[in-house]
Amino acid sequence: MKLTILGCYSATPRTFNNPTSQLLEVKGHLFLVDCGEGTQVALRKSKVKFARVKHIFISHLHGDHFYGLIGLISTFRLLGREADLHIYGPKGIKEVTLLQLKLANSYTNYNLIFHELETNESTLLFNDETIEVYTIPLNHRVYTNGFLFKEKTGERKLNMDAVLQANIHQSYYQKIKSGADVTNEDGKIIRNAQVTLEAPTPKSYAFCSDTMYKPDIVPIIQNVTALYHESTFLDQHRHLCEKTKHSTAKQAATIAKQANAGQLILGHFSTRYTSMEFFKEEAQEVFDKTELADDFKVFEF
Amino acid sequence: MKLTILGCYSATPRTFNNPTSQLLEVKGHLFLVDCGEGTQVALRKSKVKFARVKHIFISHLHGDHFYGLIGLISTFRLLGREADLHIYGPKGIKEVTLLQLKLANSYTNYNLIFHELETNESTLLFNDETIEVYTIPLNHRVYTNGFLFKEKTGERKLNMDAVLQANIHQSYYQKIKSGADVTNEDGKIIRNAQVTLEAPTPKSYAFCSDTMYKPDIVPIIQNVTALYHESTFLDQHRHLCEKTKHSTAKQAATIAKQANAGQLILGHFSTRYTSMEFFKEEAQEVFDKTELADDFKVFEF
Repeated sequence: MKLTILGCYSATPRTFNNPTSQLLEVKGHLFLVDCGEGTQVALRKSKVKFARVKHIFISHLHGDHFYGLIGLISTFRLLGREADLHIYGPKGIKEVTLLQLKLANSYTNYNLIFHELETNESTLLFNDETIEVYTIPLNHRVYTNGFLFKEKTGERKLNMDAVLQANIHQSYYQKIKSGADVTNEDGKIIRNAQVTLEAPTPKSYAFCSDTMYKPDIVPIIQNVTALYHESTFLDQHRHLCEKTKHSTAKQAATIAKQANAGQLILGHFSTRYTSMEFFKEEAQEVFDKTELADDFKVFEF
Repeated sequence: MKLTILGCYSATPRTFNNPTSQLLEVKGHLFLVDCGEGTQVALRKSKVKFARVKHIFISHLHGDHFYGLIGLISTFRLLGREADLHIYGPKGIKEVTLLQLKLANSYTNYNLIFHELETNESTLLFNDETIEVYTIPLNHRVYTNGFLFKEKTGERKLNMDAVLQANIHQSYYQKIKSGADVTNEDGKIIRNAQVTLEAPTPKSYAFCSDTMYKPDIVPIIQNVTALYHESTFLDQHRHLCEKTKHSTAKQAATIAKQANAGQLILGHFSTRYTSMEFFKEEAQEVFDKTELADDFKVFEF
C-alpha cells in the first residue's frame, strides 16, 4: 500500500499547509480520501495520474475535508473524463454537488455515482476481488466516518522446489495457488500444504479523521497495518477536545496501542503549533511506532 | 485605485495558475471581485489584510470564478470575523452557500448579506459618499455580470494663494471645497471659481469577465480609466468564441478602443497557450495601451 498525503492540516488552507486529502494506491486502485480546497492543485503537484481516481471517500462535510471536491469534479469534466466516478460521503453530498453543477450549467459528461451514508454502524462500501472498504463511525461535530481499506487474503505461493519434486503438471499451478489439492503426473494425490506457502498477510489501512477519542473503533481496526489518526491538539490543550470533538496525540497513540496497529501516522494538526515534533514525542510515550504526516509525504507499508 | 490580480487564468486551477479573483482598493474600500478555488491562499500570499474585505462581487457561478467563496466565508468565521459581509452575485448564490454552511453545521457568526442579481440592465449595487458600483450585463454561457467601480466627483481643491489673498476666514475652507461662494473678512462676496481648482477627475474601473464580444457594454464603460476584459483566446481560435461565449484579445481591444478606455488589462487566458505575449501583441494592433494581467501583478491607476 502506498499512501500519499496531499494535505494534513486542520481548519483553513494556508500558504504552505494544505487541508486534508490523501491518496491510497493499493492493488491497482487509486482511492482519494477527503478533498479539502486546493486538492486538485495538490494532485497536480504530486505528479500522480489523478484521472485514475475512480472512488472518492469523504469523511464529513466540513470545508477542510470537502470544499475541493466540486472543483475536482469540474476539472475532470474539463479534462474530458469518461470513466464513472463514485463518491462516498454523508447524506447531503449529492444535493449540494448537483446544485453547484446546476448553477454552473455544467453537468458532468461522465457518470457521477453517489453513495450517501447515514448509518452509525461500520458498513461495507466497496468490495472487489482484492479489496474491501468499510466505514469507521467516528465522533465529531457533524456526522463523520473514517474508512478502513483491507486487502483480501491473496493466493497461496508456490513452493517451486516442492512443486517440481512432486511432478505436477504446469496446468495445475493456478489451481494449487487457490488452495486445492491436485493429482500429479503419476496419478498420486498431492496435498496443497505440501507444495505451497502461506499467502502474504493482507495489509490494511485505517483513516480516522476527524474524531474525538473513541475507543469503540478499536475492534473495527484491530491489527491494522497502518492507522492514520487525527491529532489536532497536544495533551496540554486536551480541554479543547470535548467542545471541538478532536483528539490529542496521546489519545491517537492510545487508540493505536489498543488496536495493536503496525504503525501510527498522525495528522490534522492545528496550525496553532509551530513545530509538529511535539506531537510525535507525545505519542511515542504511548506508542513507539509513530510517524508524522506532512503534505506530499509518502508512506509505504 | 490599486488593483491586485490574485488569479487570471481560465478553467482549472493549476500549480502556477490561479483562477479568477482580484482585489480593488479604492477610497479606503477593499473590494473582492470573483473568488475561484484557492483565492483565500492567494489572499494570504498577497499579504493584504483581507479581513478588511466587506464586499465580494461574483460575476457568475462557474467554478473558476466562484468555488473559492465558501472556503473564504468559512475562514472568516474561523478567524472570528464580526463585520458584515456583503455578497453580490447571480441568483442561486445564497441557496448554495447556505446549504454548504448547513451541511457543515457551521453558520457564520457574522452577518452574511446576499444581493442576488437577475436583471439584464446595468444596476447600481453599491453607493456611498465616494464610490458607486454598477453591474455590466455580459454574455456568457450562464447569467453573468461585470462590475463598474466609479469614484464620485470629489471636493474642489483650494487655490491657497488665491484663498489667502482673498482674506477668507479658515472656518469657510470646507464650504469653499464644496463649491460654494463665501463672504470674506471684509464683507465681500468671493466667487468660488476665483479661489478653487477643479476636483481631480474621478477614476473608474471596469471588470468584464467572462463574456463574448458584446459591444453594447461600450456606453456603460465609456471613458473608463482602466478596463479588465477577458481574452480567453487569440484571434486564430476565434471560431471557439461562439460556442464557449468567450472573447479574443482583438475583440477585447476593440471594446477598449470603442469605450475610449484609459488602459486595457487582458486576462482569463486559456492555459492552452504557452506565452501570453501573443495576447498583448494582438491587442496592441487595435489598442496600444494594453497590459497583461498575471497572478499577483498590481496595477495602479
